[in-house]
Formats: sequence, structure tokens, C-alpha cells
Amino acid sequence: MLLNRKLIAKVLSAVASVVGAAMLLPAAVSAVYKEWDVFKIFLLCALPVILAGQIVMRSIPSQRSEDLRMRDGFFIVGVSWLAMSLIGAIPFVLSGAIPNIVDAYFETASGFTTTGSTILTEIEHLPRGILFWRSFTHWLGGMGVLVLTIAILPKLGIGGQKIMRAETTGPTMDKISFTVNDTARTLYKIYLVITGMEVVLLLFGGMDLFDALVHTFGTVGTGGFSSYNASVGAFRSGYIEWVIGIVMMMCGVNFSLYSNIYRKTPGRIFKDPEFRVYVGIIGVSTAFITVMLMIHHFYDGFAEALRSAFFQVSSIMTTTGYGTTDFDLWPLPCKFVLLLLMLVGGCAGSTGGGMKVIRAILVYKLVRRGVFRKLHPRAVSPIKVGDTTISAETMSGVAGFVILFLFTTVISTALISLEGVSLTTALSSVIACLSNIGPGFEAVGATQNFAFYSAPAKLLLSVLMIAGRLELFTVILLFTPVYWSRKK
Amino acid sequence: MLLNRKLIAKVLSAVASVVGAAMLLPAAVSAVYKEWDVFKIFLLCALPVILAGQIVMRSIPSQRSEDLRMRDGFFIVGVSWLAMSLIGAIPFVLSGAIPNIVDAYFETASGFTTTGSTILTEIEHLPRGILFWRSFTHWLGGMGVLVLTIAILPKLGIGGQKIMRAETTGPTMDKISFTVNDTARTLYKIYLVITGMEVVLLLFGGMDLFDALVHTFGTVGTGGFSSYNASVGAFRSGYIEWVIGIVMMMCGVNFSLYSNIYRKTPGRIFKDPEFRVYVGIIGVSTAFITVMLMIHHFYDGFAEALRSAFFQVSSIMTTTGYGTTDFDLWPLPCKFVLLLLMLVGGCAGSTGGGMKVIRAILVYKLVRRGVFRKLHPRAVSPIKVGDTTISAETMSGVAGFVILFLFTTVISTALISLEGVSLTTALSSVIACLSNIGPGFEAVGATQNFAFYSAPAKLLLSVLMIAGRLELFTVILLFTPVYWSRKK
Repeated sequence: MLLNRKLIAKVLSAVASVVGAAMLLPAAVSAVYKEWDVFKIFLLCALPVILAGQIVMRSIPSQRSEDLRMRDGFFIVGVSWLAMSLIGAIPFVLSGAIPNIVDAYFETASGFTTTGSTILTEIEHLPRGILFWRSFTHWLGGMGVLVLTIAILPKLGIGGQKIMRAETTGPTMDKISFTVNDTARTLYKIYLVITGMEVVLLLFGGMDLFDALVHTFGTVGTGGFSSYNASVGAFRSGYIEWVIGIVMMMCGVNFSLYSNIYRKTPGRIFKDPEFRVYVGIIGVSTAFITVMLMIHHFYDGFAEALRSAFFQVSSIMTTTGYGTTDFDLWPLPCKFVLLLLMLVGGCAGSTGGGMKVIRAILVYKLVRRGVFRKLHPRAVSPIKVGDTTISAETMSGVAGFVILFLFTTVISTALISLEGVSLTTALSSVIACLSNIGPGFEAVGATQNFAFYSAPAKLLLSVLMIAGRLELFTVILLFTPVYWSRKK
Repeated sequence: MLLNRKLIAKVLSAVASVVGAAMLLPAAVSAVYKEWDVFKIFLLCALPVILAGQIVMRSIPSQRSEDLRMRDGFFIVGVSWLAMSLIGAIPFVLSGAIPNIVDAYFETASGFTTTGSTILTEIEHLPRGILFWRSFTHWLGGMGVLVLTIAILPKLGIGGQKIMRAETTGPTMDKISFTVNDTARTLYKIYLVITGMEVVLLLFGGMDLFDALVHTFGTVGTGGFSSYNASVGAFRSGYIEWVIGIVMMMCGVNFSLYSNIYRKTPGRIFKDPEFRVYVGIIGVSTAFITVMLMIHHFYDGFAEALRSAFFQVSSIMTTTGYGTTDFDLWPLPCKFVLLLLMLVGGCAGSTGGGMKVIRAILVYKLVRRGVFRKLHPRAVSPIKVGDTTISAETMSGVAGFVILFLFTTVISTALISLEGVSLTTALSSVIACLSNIGPGFEAVGATQNFAFYSAPAKLLLSVLMIAGRLELFTVILLFTPVYWSRKK
């Protein structure tokens, strides 16, 4: 057999159980708000999914670690995300919040991939339970479900190392732990600490618990779903904007760096080359946009311009997508800076999407060396990041990824253009989904949504979200002959 | 001294002499058509330029080969193209054909770089001498002026090998000659044979000598300037369209392959991997567009659809830019195929522009290996083209080039967008100039021109043409600190 079907069924049923169990939380929220119809729908979805998942999972005997091959690992990762989004979409359809299944699939994929693009035109009248579930998919997706799966998998008799290979985002420079279980546990702790911290800070700023949870989920998952049409702008609070802006920025950092705090070596965070460039890009972009906004008299005074600039830079760079203002109205050079930030994205090992800062650094060094070599063809000039020399193998992998990313953008933009939208709309829709950002420009701008696209376009954009989340190669692999070839 | 100024002055004065001497030909054409005003202007430009060039050149003593360092070579190549375009623009300004100096510079740079983008809205009323000069810059530029310079340079006591390094377009697979002089001589012969052949074939098709020369210059240089507003479509002749279509395709091939005909091994041409992919891309694209045009009933019958499809594919793939029809009206999928062909361009070592077929092949193999490696991380999988294994160094150079090319496109598109044009117009203007194609889409489409752009935009696009022609690195190098650094 080409694939280990029993094993795959066992893992997928475990994933289904987790998604089903996660639905009990929005069920509880519905109960609190006495939304009994929605409460019933969540139970109606959750219980059969959990039950079926457990039955399938327990009926398949555990296998040894070695039985999970790379091939199975990639299949599980790719199909898990497709399946999660499908299961997660059911409550939206049954509750009537999003009656169309394609729309519901788009919204759920956008949630689990922490993209934050929405097809909803009117958010505020939706039941609390539905809004909670929508945002909770961000939290689960952000770092959750698959790392959860990695923590559960070993109990099923499966070593997660190989899954992690498909899942890790970007070439990581810093190895924090030796086994996946340790990694997962460390990441949980960090994730929970940041989540708790933000909830408390937002409550302190006057938010109620529901809003604080929803916006924390959207922030730490770098997703961007809000419970208000005006997004974070609805609160009209500078304090809240600073809290969310800074936490977004924290979640765009490689989470493994935070383990330095546990190890009482916080200074090492600031020595990380990717972190330094990341902070540098945010600083320079914020300064540039602040100055441009001041020149064009967009806000009352420096403090508001700075806050708006920083919030939007942090939101776009980390691929969260929250807004406090309609940045589509900003001067063109500001929008251009935001477009470049969209392409770069967060750090590797963060919950952010995009191509990742480390790849931008490596690609910049690759181009710079190309120029240098024309002048000094015989000079030996290895590419280094910090003290690490990057191997030619890694470099060619990174270059291949960047080219594939750009090529996917070009092809997808051409396909989306068939919808009759402007090139700006098509291009920014594709980048917004592929880089897991959320809003784009013009027809999919900060105050707009993706509702007007046809069903095929929505499905394409959903696949782009998942492909972007799983770093392209993982998803593209499933469509190659070499993957399905019987040869070892 | 950082640069060998005497040597640079000597070479530039030689280049000026050549451009001046070249103006004697349009002067003769003006005399034939009794355009005495234009005749006087060409003599007025040519004689002082030749005289000044010769005086400076002869007043500087010859130097030994070793005195030309890489640094000087790059400076000479970059500045030669800027200077040639400036000198070549003078007759346009003085004759009143293009009174504005920026417009004239754009048109001349477009000529020498064999781009074929024009700022002229009305071509047919221009004097014959002026039209001849405009097209002759294509012929000179196409392969000419710098290879001419390479042939002249050794007589100045300079080894051209180092210049060739800056000038060769794309990573060439086939070394035909051991010295640059031999290479130059072989290339001349091939270029002259193809030129003569096309002139005869066009005369045979009923063109007069003037039109035959103008369109041959535009074809073999893969430039695209015509003497008619309707471009090649003006002749309404299927025969002429096939002749020009096929010669364009021949000029998009690596010229060094044609030396196999001299060596009586023509079969080796068809074994060249780049040639095979090039022909394959043209074949598949032509077939696809023909079918699309038939489905949408664009032309009367198969023969006309096939001819129009082949002509346009050949014109765009080789970055010539001739048109027989307004392809901006074609169905969207056809336009999308043309856009992809624009990015690929001709073969390395041809007169065509763009990123080059060989780079597209290498980049495709790089991405494919990236996918394969995710599945077989320990497999040894060198990248091969034909029987040649491509070194990691070459691959990183190619990847760096492609990324730099795409990045230049993004940044320049953003800058051109400031003109208030649509994104499609801005993007296709940039690609049309950077890839040395000529026309783009929408406001710069096949039946439009670049006249409406502001002076800064025209200058930017002129620099893009030159940067694209000189394979980016050469021009970008001149703006880097490492180039101007005194350290060896």
C-alpha cells in the first residue's frame, strides 16, 4: 500500500475529536448568553464528531513510530487542514449564520489558517456563540490544532518528529528542545502565558470578557477576526490599540526565542539576527508612515499618527489584519510599504504568515552576493546569518521557495482576474490569502470583504490560505507525481 | 585612481565615433529621398561626433590588456549605453521629429536596447531618414554596438574578455570560440546572413527596400520599431507575417548554436536543451492561443488564427513587440499566456530580452528539487540541464538574478503607479521595458504608446530598458558601495 491508510484514519479521527471537543467551548458561551438554538447546534455538531472520532480512533490498533513515513506525514498534515475546515464549517451552516457551504468553508479555513479574510458583510448581529467559535478557530489554528495533534500523536504510538518537519514554518535557526513533546509543551506554555496576559490587559482597558477573549484569540493567532465591523477601531481606545499592537508584534516573533526567558537568558533574544531585522523593519516602516501621515494631516497630532502607523504596520507585518482605520485611504507610498510588509510576513516559528523575515534576509544576502561576485568572481563569500554559515542546500531551498511563492502569486492573480476585478484587487486578494493576512486593497480593502467572489474563486482562495499556512511545498507535494510514485 | 579614467575616455570616444559613423547611413537615406533638411542634420550630428571621438581616442596612448580591470569594464558597459542613447537622440531633437529631449532619449534608449517602446503617436508622416535611424538603432543595438566595441577594443590594446563577462546575456552552455575576437566575428557573420536573408525574403513579398530594411532591423534586433502605425499589420500579407514571425523566432535562439551550421553539425542545434524548451514553449502557446481564438471566433478560419497566434507568440517570446492585430482585445487567458512569455523571454545569447529560457528551466528545476527534497531529504539530486550538472554557485547566481528581476519589477511598478495609471498599465509598462519587449497592455497596449507618461517616469523606464539589456547586475553594480570602495 502506498499510504499507511489505517494510521492516517487513526490520526484524522483524532483530529476530528479535537475539533469536536473544541466546539464545546462555544456551546458553553451560547449557554451563558442564553442562545439556546445555537447551543443545540454546537452540541449537535460536537457530540457525533467526538463520538465517531473516538470510535474510529480506538478501533485502529496503535502502531510503532517507524510506521509513520514522510509520505504519510505530509498527507496527514495537508488533509488535516482541509478536514478541520470542513468540520468547523458545519455550525456556521446549520445555525444559518453562513447558510452557503462554500462561504462557510472559506470563513473556517480563514479561521484555522489564521488568515482573517471574511465573507461576512455584517458581523455584529451574529449570535455570541458563533462569533466565539469563529475567533476560537484562530486560537486553535494559530499554533494550536496541529501542535495539539503533535502532543496527542505520541500517545497513539506515533513519533511526531516527521510531522513537525512538514509543519515547522521557515528555516529555524535556534533549536530549543530535543524532542517534539518538549517543544510542544514549551510552546503551549508560551502561548498560554501570552494569551492570559493579553486577556488581563484588555479587561483592564475596559473590554468585557467576551470581547477580550475574541480579540486575544485574533491577536495571538495573528488571525484578525473581530466581533465588530469596525474591527479594533470600534473601541476608540488608544490603550487597547497599543496593547493589541504590541501583542501582535510579540506573536510575530519566533516563539522558540521566548524559551530564553525560562532559561533566564533574555538577552539572547536581542542577539537573534531575525529578531533584530524584524524589529528594525517595524521601526523604520512605522517611522516612515508616521511622517507621511503627519505631512498629509491624516490625524490630529503626532501621538495618533504614530499609534495608527504602528498598529497597522504591526498588524500587516505579522499578517494579523486587524484595523483601526481605513488604510486604503492612506497616501500611496504608505500603501506600498504595507504591500512589501505583506510579502515579508512574520518571523519563522511565529504564528504569522508570509514568506518570513529569515527568508527575506537570506534572499537579500543572495542577491547582494550575486552583485559582489560579478566584481570579484574568485572571492570566497559564504552567506552568513549571525555566526551561522548557511549551506548551499539551504540557500537553494529558500530561493526555490521564494520563487514558488511569487509564481503562485502570479498564476493565482491571473485566475482571480477572471472574476472581472481590478488587478489591484486580484493581486491583493491573493497575497492576503496566501500570506494569511486577511484584508487587501480596493474591493477587498480594510472595510470590505470577500463576499462578492464566485464559489470557485472562494475555493481557490481557501486552498491558497491552507497552502500558505503549510508553507506551500507541503500542499504542492500532494499534487506531484513523485509523491504518488511507488518507487522509494 | 579608482577607475582607469584615460582608458574609459578612450573607449567611450571610440563608441561615440561608431555611433557618429552609423549616422552617415540615415544621412544617405535622407539624400536618396531628397530630405535635405534631415540630411544636413545627420551630417551636422555625425561629423562633430566622429571628429571629437577620433581626436580624444587618438590622443590617449594605447594601454596593455591587463590595465582593464573588471571595475573599468562594468563602468564602460554601463556608461556606453547611457552615452550612446544620448548621442543617438540628438538627430531626433534637432530635426523636430521629437522636440522634447526626454522623449528623444526614451525613444533612442528603446532603439539601442531593442525594446521597441515608443512615445510617438504618429509615425507615418516622419521623414524617411529619421525612421531609418530609429530602426537602425535596433540593428546596431540588437547585437551590434557592444559586440562592435568588443571587436574594436582589442585594436585599442584592450582584451575584450572582461567586457564580454559583463555583456554576455544569461548563463551560456555552449562555448563556441576561445577568444572574443573569434566570437565577435562568428556572431557578425550569422547576424549579417540572417539580415540579408530576411531583406531578400521581404523584397520577394512585395515590400520596397526601405520597408524591408526597417522591418529587418526591427526583427533581427528583436526590437519592434515599424515605419507604420499599424506595425506589421499594415502590410495585410500572410506571407510577410510568416517571414517576420519565423525570423523573429530564429533571432530568439542562442546565436552560438548557429555555428553548428558552419561546423556542418546542424543536428546539434536540436539537441540543445534550451532550444528544445524554447521551441516547445512557442509550440504549446501557439496551439493554445489558436484554439482559444477559434472558440471565440476571432478570425476567419484556422489559417488566420494560427498565423496571428504564432506571430504574436513569437513576437512576445522573443521580446520583439511587433503586432499584426490588437492582442489587447484577445480573450483573457490568451493575454495571460502572453504575460508569462514576456517574463521568460528569449534564449541566452540571442538578441531577445527577458529573464531568458535557460533561467526559467533552471528555476523550474530548482523548485522541483525543493519539492522532491521534502520527501527524500537525504537524496543526492544535482540539477542537470542536458548532460551538464549545474553547480550550486551557478544556481545561486540564477536564483539571485530571478529574485532581483522580480523585485525590480515590484518596486518599479509601485513607482510607475504614482502616475495614476491602472496597475495593469503600470505592471505591463515595467515588464515591457525591463524585458525589452515594447508594448504592454491597456494604456500602453499594442495600439497605444508611452507618450502620456511624465518625464521622470520616462527616464525611469529608459533606465529599466538599459538595466534589462545589461542583465541588471551590471547596472545595479554601479550603484553599490562595494563597487566604489577602494579596497581590492
